[in-house]
Amino acid sequence: MERYYFDWAASSPISTEALQVYTETALQHIANPSSVHSPGRAAGAALSGIRSRFASLMGVPAQQLFFTSGGTEANALICNSFLMKKRPIHLVISGIEHPSIFAYIQRFKQLGHSVTILPAPGGRITPESVASALRPDTALVLIMSVNNVLGTIQPLEQISAVIRAYEQRHRCRIHLHADAVQAFGKIDRSHYLPHADSISVSAHKLQGPRGTGLLYSRKPFLTPSPGGGQESGMRPGTENLPAIAAFYQCSLRCHSNLEADLAHAQSMKDHLIMELASRPAIKVLTPPQEHASPYILGLSIPRIPSEVFMRVLDDRGVSISTGSACSSKNRKKAQRIFLQSGFDQRLCDGALRISFGPSVTADDIAMLSRSVIEESDRLLKEMG
Amino acid sequence: MERYYFDWAASSPISTEALQVYTETALQHIANPSSVHSPGRAAGAALSGIRSRFASLMGVPAQQLFFTSGGTEANALICNSFLMKKRPIHLVISGIEHPSIFAYIQRFKQLGHSVTILPAPGGRITPESVASALRPDTALVLIMSVNNVLGTIQPLEQISAVIRAYEQRHRCRIHLHADAVQAFGKIDRSHYLPHADSISVSAHKLQGPRGTGLLYSRKPFLTPSPGGGQESGMRPGTENLPAIAAFYQCSLRCHSNLEADLAHAQSMKDHLIMELASRPAIKVLTPPQEHASPYILGLSIPRIPSEVFMRVLDDRGVSISTGSACSSKNRKKAQRIFLQSGFDQRLCDGALRISFGPSVTADDIAMLSRSVIEESDRLLKEMG
Repeated sequence: MERYYFDWAASSPISTEALQVYTETALQHIANPSSVHSPGRAAGAALSGIRSRFASLMGVPAQQLFFTSGGTEANALICNSFLMKKRPIHLVISGIEHPSIFAYIQRFKQLGHSVTILPAPGGRITPESVASALRPDTALVLIMSVNNVLGTIQPLEQISAVIRAYEQRHRCRIHLHADAVQAFGKIDRSHYLPHADSISVSAHKLQGPRGTGLLYSRKPFLTPSPGGGQESGMRPGTENLPAIAAFYQCSLRCHSNLEADLAHAQSMKDHLIMELASRPAIKVLTPPQEHASPYILGLSIPRIPSEVFMRVLDDRGVSISTGSACSSKNRKKAQRIFLQSGFDQRLCDGALRISFGPSVTADDIAMLSRSVIEESDRLLKEMG
Repeated sequence: MERYYFDWAASSPISTEALQVYTETALQHIANPSSVHSPGRAAGAALSGIRSRFASLMGVPAQQLFFTSGGTEANALICNSFLMKKRPIHLVISGIEHPSIFAYIQRFKQLGHSVTILPAPGGRITPESVASALRPDTALVLIMSVNNVLGTIQPLEQISAVIRAYEQRHRCRIHLHADAVQAFGKIDRSHYLPHADSISVSAHKLQGPRGTGLLYSRKPFLTPSPGGGQESGMRPGTENLPAIAAFYQCSLRCHSNLEADLAHAQSMKDHLIMELASRPAIKVLTPPQEHASPYILGLSIPRIPSEVFMRVLDDRGVSISTGSACSSKNRKKAQRIFLQSGFDQRLCDGALRISFGPSVTADDIAMLSRSVIEESDRLLKEMG
C-alpha cells in the first residue's frame, strides 16, 4: 500500500541532501571539534564556519547561536535558566505551548514561582491578554511563533511592543522566548525573529536530522548544565558536527526557497480547504491565510472521535494526527491546545491535524481530501 | 600526508556499518516514534526493539535505559537530579572525573551542598579514600570506570562494597554513579556494571554517531527537564532513532568482539610501551595491564611541554592529545587529571594521551612509536 504522510509537524522525512551532508561530514571530520591537533582544528573550523553561515542566514550574531540536541532542549535551556532563579518570579505562558514548554508550568509552581496561563481564542494569543497578565515581577513570557497543532501565527510583534512598553513603564526586564520550531524556515522570519529575545529551532521539522536544533538568545542565560565548555560554555557535550552541517543545509534550502514554497503550500492548503468545504460536517479550525502557516491545518469532524478517524485514514495509508506526537497517546493532553483555543468539547473530540512540507503535490492533496471526505461520509452514514 | 589518528578517547571515526544503519533507519522511519499512526507505531516499535536488545546486551531491564544526546547529558541527568535536592547533601567525587561531571562541583557548592574531592594516586581512587570520605549525609558518589586520560580502571567493585557497608551501618542511601564512557564496549562490564547505580555511555567513542548516548539507572531519579514524556518521562525530545539504531549496532559489535579486541589492543599497547621504554626520557604514566584499559595510554616527556610535542607530532601527521578534548584548550584544565593523580609538575608539563581503537594495526603502532622517539630525541637534543 502506498503511504501518504501528512504529519510533518511531528517529524519530516530527512532529505537526500541532508543525509548526504551528514554522511560526508561524518566521514570527513572524525575528530572532536574541541581537539587542538589538525583534524580537531579542522572540525572546529568547520563548526565555526557553519555557525557563521547560520548567523548570516538569520541575520544575528554568531555568538548568540547555541546548537542543542533539538527544539526541546533549546526550550529547556531557557525554562531551566529561569527555573533556577532564587527569587520567585512570575511568568506568562500561552495555553497553547508545545509540551516541551507547557510541562514546565508545574515545575515552576513547585519551586514557588507564579504562572499566568493565557487562553488563545481561535488559536491566537492577543496582545491585550499579555498586557493584562504582566506584573512588575514578570521575568519570562513564553509564546510560540507558529502553533504546532493549529498552525496559527502568534502576533509576536504586537506582543513584544506591549512587553517593551511595560518594561519601560515599570523599569523591569522581561524575557520573551518564542518556540519557533514550526516557524523557522516555514514562514517569514519577520513574524518572530526581531521580536523575541530567544527562539528555539529543530532540524527534523525541516527535513534535517533528528537530534539537533538550536537556541538563539540575544540575552545571556544561565546554563542548567555546566561541562566541557562547548557552545561558549552554555551547552556542554561533543558537538554533533555531521547533524549540525545537515541542519544548516536544510535551513539554507528552506530560506532560499521560502517564498516559492510558501506560495505553493498556500495554494495546496487553499485547495484542500475548498474541497473539504463541500462537507458541512467537516469544520476547519485554523484561521485564514494571513494568521496561519500554510503547512498546518487544524480541523474537526465533531461527531467522529479523532482517534477513530485517524485510524480509519491510517488504514487507507494516509497518516494524519490528533495533535502533537508528544501528546498523541493521551486524549486529554492531545485536546489541550484545541480547548485552550476556545473550541467547544464537540469540536475538540473530533479534532485533527494535517501537516505537510514543501514537496506536497496536488495529487497528494487530492488523495487526502478524497480520503477525508469518503471516510467521513461513510462513518457519518453508518452512525445514522 | 597520511594521517595517523590516536585520539579515539576524544572521538572515534564513525564505522561504515554504523553510518549505514543510520542512513537506513533515517530513510525507513520518517515518522516520530511517539506518533500513533502506522509509520509512528513502526518507529516506536523499532525504538522499543532496540531498547530491549540493548538491555539484553547489558543484562539490565529495558525500562532502566534512557537514551540521551550523549555521555555528557547522561552525566548531567544524574548531577542535575541531585543538584535539585532541597536539603543540602554531601557528595564525593573523584578528582579525575571528566569535565562533564567535574564542572558540577562549583554548582553544587553554590547551592549549599558540600563536596569531598578524592585524589587518585597513580590515576586510581582507593576504596579506603572513599570509606573515609563518606558521611551520614552523603547522597551521591561520582567515580568513573575508566579514566579518560590515563585509562586507569577504578576499583568500583571494592568501592561499591565500601558504600553498601556504610549504607547498612548508617541506614542511609548513597547513589554511586559511574561515567562509563571510556569503559562501555571496551573493557569487561564486570568492572563497572554490577557495581554502579547508574552509568553513562556515549556512542561516538565506539565508532557510533555523535549526539547519542545513554544513561542506565537502576534507581529512580528526578529529571531536570520535563517535556513530551519520551524516555518514560525522564528525557524529553523526539527520539533520535537513526542514531540510536547505529549506537546499538556499534555496541553490539564491541561486545561481540570484546575479548579478541581486548587481546589485540593489549598487545598493541604492550608493544608501544616496550618501544618507548628504549628512551628513559619518556615516562609511561598509565599503570600496568590489569589496572588500565588497553585503549588509552598516558605518558610524559617531562622536559618537553605537552602542547609543543603534540604539535610536533601533528606536523608529522600523527594526532595525539594533551588530555580530554573538552579541556585541551586550557593548560590548567588539561593538567588537572595528571595533577590529581599525584604526578609532579614536571611530569604534568609534559603529559600526553595516546588513545586508539580496535582497528589499530602493528604498522600504526610502529609509526607512532617511531614518531614519538624520533621527535623527542630531536627536541631533547636541540634543548641540549
